[in-house]
Amino acid sequence: MPAPVSLDLLLKQLARLPSVGPRSARRMALHLLHKKDSLMLPLAATLQAVAQTVESCQVCGNWDTQNPCHLCTDGRRDKTILAVVENVADLWAMERAQRFRGLYHVLGGTLSALSDVAPEALRIPSLVDRCRQGGIEEVILALNATIDGQTTAHYVAAALEGLPVRLTRLAQGVPIGGELDYLDEGTLGAALMARLPL
Amino acid sequence: MPAPVSLDLLLKQLARLPSVGPRSARRMALHLLHKKDSLMLPLAATLQAVAQTVESCQVCGNWDTQNPCHLCTDGRRDKTILAVVENVADLWAMERAQRFRGLYHVLGGTLSALSDVAPEALRIPSLVDRCRQGGIEEVILALNATIDGQTTAHYVAAALEGLPVRLTRLAQGVPIGGELDYLDEGTLGAALMARLPL
Repeated sequence: MPAPVSLDLLLKQLARLPSVGPRSARRMALHLLHKKDSLMLPLAATLQAVAQTVESCQVCGNWDTQNPCHLCTDGRRDKTILAVVENVADLWAMERAQRFRGLYHVLGGTLSALSDVAPEALRIPSLVDRCRQGGIEEVILALNATIDGQTTAHYVAAALEGLPVRLTRLAQGVPIGGELDYLDEGTLGAALMARLPL
Repeated sequence: MPAPVSLDLLLKQLARLPSVGPRSARRMALHLLHKKDSLMLPLAATLQAVAQTVESCQVCGNWDTQNPCHLCTDGRRDKTILAVVENVADLWAMERAQRFRGLYHVLGGTLSALSDVAPEALRIPSLVDRCRQGGIEEVILALNATIDGQTTAHYVAAALEGLPVRLTRLAQGVPIGGELDYLDEGTLGAALMARLPL
């Protein structure tokens, strides 16, 4: 039996999760107490086990229990094409789209003058190494269409200059299901300029 | 080193927390992985310890590491006055209002025809016992101003009939349809001060 731990500590720790405030933390704590055996103890065990067994893939930066991760070691994936993403959340988003069958490279952030993120803080050198080792024919810069994302895309493109890889970026345009009237001018303008034959 | 646990299990368990969907669960999991030592492992330990050491107070129904809880054993609190609340979230809301210095009795829910909650499922018999033992002069029915809350208040009032306790309820000022846990402290405190005889 561990030493008694006050609920306050649990509330404080839960409130440090993203988009969880004091009220949500209280609701979570009470929900967990009501489901001690079916959720609270299993969640404690899972957190412990994941913290100890899940690590960052040394090749692409994805989180997995194996290293290199299951994506990097999957023989069915196309090893000639590499998608550069900002973080693992974006990698997961790409996987949910179920259209990309190549490999990934997670930068671990974007260059940001405001947040003072310098190129050395990102996994750009290892990306250059992977491209230099050969075998990769295309690099898709699947970065966010934000100022920081596009700044980073330009920097990565410059870092890969001279290497025998084709650089591409995601298309910009009207989102599927999107309505023109609700679209911002920039997106609509970009979609118009990049119009395709019907 | 425990057996590898896939991130999927963690995502599934996090998504079972109140108001956490698949997207929030993914954000939480990635946040936790980035803060393994400062948040993930401490949270796992806290969940484990709280699950093993926090229990429901046998007197009032509050959650605490001691039983009877620190409120029931606090000599500075007025033992002649009892607030009947629906759940521990409401008890915490009352404590945050900082106006009530008596003891509590947590019912553990409200009577509900729709959800099929019968009187036997609530801690009403132990409330009657507490009042019968004497020493309690006033019972405040601090229940939600909802149909179920008021139905329960009437039922509790009937169950306590004939006992030498004065029954009161929270003052009007609690918005109709409102729930205590969502009320600001000032309103709750004012309603407590303006309580009326039943």
